[in-house]
Amino acid sequence: MRTPLIDNLQYANYSPAIFEQMRAGGVDAVHVTVAYHETFREMVLNLERWNRWFEDHPDLILRGTTAEDVTRAQETGRTAIFFGFQNPSPIEDDIGLVEICHQLGVRFMQLSYNNQSLLATGCYEDEDSGLTRMGRGVVAEMNRVGMVIDMSHSAERSTLDAIEHSARPIAITHANPHWWHPALRNKSHRVLKALTDAGGMLGFSVYPHHLRGGSDCTLDSYCGMIAEAASRYGAGNLGIGTDLCQGQPDSVVEWMRVGRWTRTIDYGEGSAANAGFPRMPYWFTDNRDFGNIRRGLQSAGFDVAEVDGIMGGNWHRFYAQGFGPA
Amino acid sequence: MRTPLIDNLQYANYSPAIFEQMRAGGVDAVHVTVAYHETFREMVLNLERWNRWFEDHPDLILRGTTAEDVTRAQETGRTAIFFGFQNPSPIEDDIGLVEICHQLGVRFMQLSYNNQSLLATGCYEDEDSGLTRMGRGVVAEMNRVGMVIDMSHSAERSTLDAIEHSARPIAITHANPHWWHPALRNKSHRVLKALTDAGGMLGFSVYPHHLRGGSDCTLDSYCGMIAEAASRYGAGNLGIGTDLCQGQPDSVVEWMRVGRWTRTIDYGEGSAANAGFPRMPYWFTDNRDFGNIRRGLQSAGFDVAEVDGIMGGNWHRFYAQGFGPA
Repeated sequence: MRTPLIDNLQYANYSPAIFEQMRAGGVDAVHVTVAYHETFREMVLNLERWNRWFEDHPDLILRGTTAEDVTRAQETGRTAIFFGFQNPSPIEDDIGLVEICHQLGVRFMQLSYNNQSLLATGCYEDEDSGLTRMGRGVVAEMNRVGMVIDMSHSAERSTLDAIEHSARPIAITHANPHWWHPALRNKSHRVLKALTDAGGMLGFSVYPHHLRGGSDCTLDSYCGMIAEAASRYGAGNLGIGTDLCQGQPDSVVEWMRVGRWTRTIDYGEGSAANAGFPRMPYWFTDNRDFGNIRRGLQSAGFDVAEVDGIMGGNWHRFYAQGFGPA
Repeated sequence: MRTPLIDNLQYANYSPAIFEQMRAGGVDAVHVTVAYHETFREMVLNLERWNRWFEDHPDLILRGTTAEDVTRAQETGRTAIFFGFQNPSPIEDDIGLVEICHQLGVRFMQLSYNNQSLLATGCYEDEDSGLTRMGRGVVAEMNRVGMVIDMSHSAERSTLDAIEHSARPIAITHANPHWWHPALRNKSHRVLKALTDAGGMLGFSVYPHHLRGGSDCTLDSYCGMIAEAASRYGAGNLGIGTDLCQGQPDSVVEWMRVGRWTRTIDYGEGSAANAGFPRMPYWFTDNRDFGNIRRGLQSAGFDVAEVDGIMGGNWHRFYAQGFGPA
């Protein structure tokens, strides 16, 4: 069996057309976002929609909960869909929901999404108080049941706290190094070193606000950044998490900035003049473009095994280690 | 492997002491009630409590979702716990919750609990309008995912409708024949004949209001009733569903009669003078007493294979047929 191709973070407006593109692009597994602000009950509605898609499109997709499901997807020519939360809102104030959500197939959860949560601080807050009391308990519970801690939208100290408190490797599923592009959402060398020294994984984002040069970022620059990261953190701890938001209306990105928590908009990495979803770089616009990234990595000097690892092998190994009970 | 001992309906106030009694009684599997009035979110809280019990008492109990889990329980000296709803309230008005609840391990759902529900009529209503529009859809959805339809607390016409509309055998997990004891909760010959002709299962209740003579019902009378049922419906379609409500405070039975839906109490099969939980018959008070029922069946003239079937083999076969996708 060839090494699988895995995109470990997408938040697209899914449809059968996108599932067809996953197949056309040879994508074996995708970690999809099933909550970025939802309550438990609202998140379950999103799972229901996925259940219907699995029922209606069994030739294209399957519900993934284990690393073996990626292999099963490869063997049957389908894409395994893994669930994750970008915000801990679905577990509300109830630690028992961690195991319930794991039983419903959820395999990744961010401890905060830009703002302070009950568990940790988000990357847009002025003050970062680190893991909360509940946060420490939830980290231990996620460790116990096999749900991966994701700190993509969390703040520096909170992220270092999570790395330290977690007994199992954690992930930053979709972000880039701050030394390459100093966005609030990108991660410091200190965080990335601590993450990867503890066996954690970094997924490189293609979301334009995380790229040097934004939408005009070149593939050479992107893959050069990955080569530099490999020299600092080891190629075995790196993967892809594109943050593909294909087909989402601008109302979604506006919601991400306003939600129910404020009456004034904070554009984050965007601006009033560039308020909607930014244009993706020409070399990655949908699931059919992973060949470009693969070729870019080859040009950047990686050998075949390293390229295979970054394109999915490393995430596959991480799934095998991370998704079962401790 | 010996034939398993299965009690296919209990609603006890569970505790480690009761799990110990299950082991002392050699009970290999129990279908436990996780909702009789709860919303989806409230029911999930009950599942969380069970998750904690499974975590804290792995030497006594395990979470059962397939017939094979009963065998696994036997092999490891534990009791497999299967989840069921006595009321469809946890699926609210959302048919997608059927599959979500199945994914959370729920394997039985009653379509109504004494009162009219969104799906069917309960046994205490004056008018029985049969399966509703949503009810017909939910029956098909339960058939599709492998959740067993239970009509224990439903009315006559609704039950006949469910038997007719269901593409798979259904169950009456805890009730007795009306021809033995004419309680509103007991079932007519017509219903029991249609149920079993379609491959469905009847579980005999030990709840005193369902017994001839109430709390003073004799074991001979009970097992004689089972012998008559076997002659009418075939011993292979019969099992036990004790309705053991051990340790529940009287506030629970009061809730069953009042809930949030009325301001005046209807005592159902009880009365103002006998308002609490009735005293159980001397020959069955907890999970250690199944040997009495087994001996009673032997005395009533059943052969060993028939006794084994009624004590659990028939439910085990039904689990194997009923719990997977159509």
